[in-house]
Amino acid sequence: MRTMTTRPENRHQVRLLRLLRDEGPISRAELAEAVALSRSKLAVELDRLTELGLVESAGQAASRGGRRAAIMKLGSGLRFVGIDIGATSVDVAITDGELKVVSRAGEPADVRQGPDVVLGIALDLLAKLRAEGSAVDIHGVGVGVPGPVSFKDGIPVAPPIMPGWDGYQVRSVLSQHLGAPVLVDNDVNIMALGEMHAGLSRTVDDFMFVKVGTGVGCGIVVDGSVYRGQSGSAGDIGHIRVEDDGPVCVCGNVGCLESLFSGAALAREARAAARSGRSEFLRARLEQAGDVTAADVSEAASSADPVAIELVRTGGRRLGAVLAGLVNFFNPGLIAIGGEVAAGLGHPFLAEVRSVVYRRSLPLATGNLPIVLSEMGRDAGVVGAARMISDSVFTIPDSA
Amino acid sequence: MRTMTTRPENRHQVRLLRLLRDEGPISRAELAEAVALSRSKLAVELDRLTELGLVESAGQAASRGGRRAAIMKLGSGLRFVGIDIGATSVDVAITDGELKVVSRAGEPADVRQGPDVVLGIALDLLAKLRAEGSAVDIHGVGVGVPGPVSFKDGIPVAPPIMPGWDGYQVRSVLSQHLGAPVLVDNDVNIMALGEMHAGLSRTVDDFMFVKVGTGVGCGIVVDGSVYRGQSGSAGDIGHIRVEDDGPVCVCGNVGCLESLFSGAALAREARAAARSGRSEFLRARLEQAGDVTAADVSEAASSADPVAIELVRTGGRRLGAVLAGLVNFFNPGLIAIGGEVAAGLGHPFLAEVRSVVYRRSLPLATGNLPIVLSEMGRDAGVVGAARMISDSVFTIPDSA
Repeated sequence: MRTMTTRPENRHQVRLLRLLRDEGPISRAELAEAVALSRSKLAVELDRLTELGLVESAGQAASRGGRRAAIMKLGSGLRFVGIDIGATSVDVAITDGELKVVSRAGEPADVRQGPDVVLGIALDLLAKLRAEGSAVDIHGVGVGVPGPVSFKDGIPVAPPIMPGWDGYQVRSVLSQHLGAPVLVDNDVNIMALGEMHAGLSRTVDDFMFVKVGTGVGCGIVVDGSVYRGQSGSAGDIGHIRVEDDGPVCVCGNVGCLESLFSGAALAREARAAARSGRSEFLRARLEQAGDVTAADVSEAASSADPVAIELVRTGGRRLGAVLAGLVNFFNPGLIAIGGEVAAGLGHPFLAEVRSVVYRRSLPLATGNLPIVLSEMGRDAGVVGAARMISDSVFTIPDSA
Repeated sequence: MRTMTTRPENRHQVRLLRLLRDEGPISRAELAEAVALSRSKLAVELDRLTELGLVESAGQAASRGGRRAAIMKLGSGLRFVGIDIGATSVDVAITDGELKVVSRAGEPADVRQGPDVVLGIALDLLAKLRAEGSAVDIHGVGVGVPGPVSFKDGIPVAPPIMPGWDGYQVRSVLSQHLGAPVLVDNDVNIMALGEMHAGLSRTVDDFMFVKVGTGVGCGIVVDGSVYRGQSGSAGDIGHIRVEDDGPVCVCGNVGCLESLFSGAALAREARAAARSGRSEFLRARLEQAGDVTAADVSEAASSADPVAIELVRTGGRRLGAVLAGLVNFFNPGLIAIGGEVAAGLGHPFLAEVRSVVYRRSLPLATGNLPIVLSEMGRDAGVVGAARMISDSVFTIPDSA
């Protein structure tokens, strides 16, 4: 299997590649200005990048009377791969150099089946995508997994919902198999990168991406890079205390956000409301399907079920209470809320979050703070994974 | 008044200057290795820096048989100035290039007298120090003020306890007067930088400096730089909700950390305990001095006054509750707690903070998390201010 490990050779080339990745095709004149190079020096670097297959001509801009401007873009053979391993699914995408999804595939998979099975599924999906397409060269692979990861080594570290993965060499196994550079991080950090690359967060340097799925987590971006903290656990907001009482959390404490508001918590409360008959909608759903989930709560709320509406609003207030404190501390430029549960809960939920944050945080921190639902859906993970590995490939190897 | 604005000319020189500032005198051989330059290229850069007066020879290391190693150090004429304007005091220090305090002076001053009076006092103190010493060249001045600052412009922005300072051009007024580069930031960010340069936080990249004075604030350091957030308000932890009830805070909410635990809150509760006679120690102090302060609470606690001990412990628990959540989010490498009130409360207070954080935060985040009292005392502010301006002077002007 042929792969490429071509990399830029100096920091001018790095800047050119990243610009073309993030901004798309650009004229030579604008490139020269953006990287502060003379046209002759720019030509040297672009020639070299063209030789390496990393850059190519994209024709000429429409004439405005003078000489027509030559446009450059990333090499059309550039391909990155994003693999998003969730608790119950595997998604794989091949992107071009600008991280636009060229092809994608996904299927249900239980992460508890362990790395051999789940990575096998991911590799099969990737092989299928490569067989279908004409591009077979892969410049790098990014992987997200639903648990803590030692980023440097690409190894999951005591991941609570991933039995069998603890200490598994995800990075080196995939790298050897595919013959391409591989990086692994937890899924929330990956989604934050995807949001940064293609979502509403494009315009801010510092932001928070909050994922509400089975659990609750947060990806933190500082100055355009994921902030991981001293031991890689930064953003683990699910166990911040939000109330003094409540059910005992998996972490052993009481009052944690995640034990009171998360996909799992919503399903638990929905089951209770269904069994007690307090909610007619949920009771019917339980009888019909044998169980109720967070998605049923969203649906019940949309159908004006008062118990479900109360669950959604209380959840929003609890998440808002945690975010209000973090906004004072971190003063982000934007908060994007994603994950399947949040997407389902929608705007009534978002309104509660906003209301608490805007009331409880300091005006200086909220004066210009958009709080939005992520619009990227399932693309956040795979695009973010591709973004992560492209940042690493578009680096001078010595300084990587 | 003669001043110098000599600056490094390329990134090798920047790295050499910062190394010599942070590590002290270093042999040419070690410098060459640290900045990855050949000995001949290193010689070119060191010659140029010597010409500029930024670097000089520090003699030779003791011989170990072979050729004796030439040692280099920062120019002995390099001087930075740190000015720390507090609510009730002004401190000024002149440092050498390594940010060691060469001379210092301070006097009480009420910040509410406004910028003309208070900056006048600072300039008088500086003039006195310069008259006493032989070095009259100043390479830069850093200033800390007790309120929010627009860092780019060096202008206080609606600072609550600094009437008359809102919008005052602190940076340009001082820069014009002194003919040297000036930077202004809020006092907590400055203290965090001081702690990073010379305190226990030297060894970590990411940490929090918590100041407990009249109010409570936090300086955040990410990867060796102060993190300011989108609008410069990052670290404003005094208004994070810690309890559902409590006195109304100056911000209009209830249950804010600062309204329940801070120098002001301790003084308020001490007054109540003195007036009601619940604390004999504090009652006597009130009669004798006409008022009681946070310092009296510390003293009473040291004298085994049960009411004061309870105040100290409750305060530690409240601060700990806020820090526990922030540790999950930020995963710092160290928390240093400083400010005059914290210093007075001492280790019984620290023990409560630690106890709550270690119990409430996730093991992955606390496994290797020292929580310490800052050992820098009043030096944190002036050294941090000097550090801030030295970072700016030791930068290539184009990229600054």
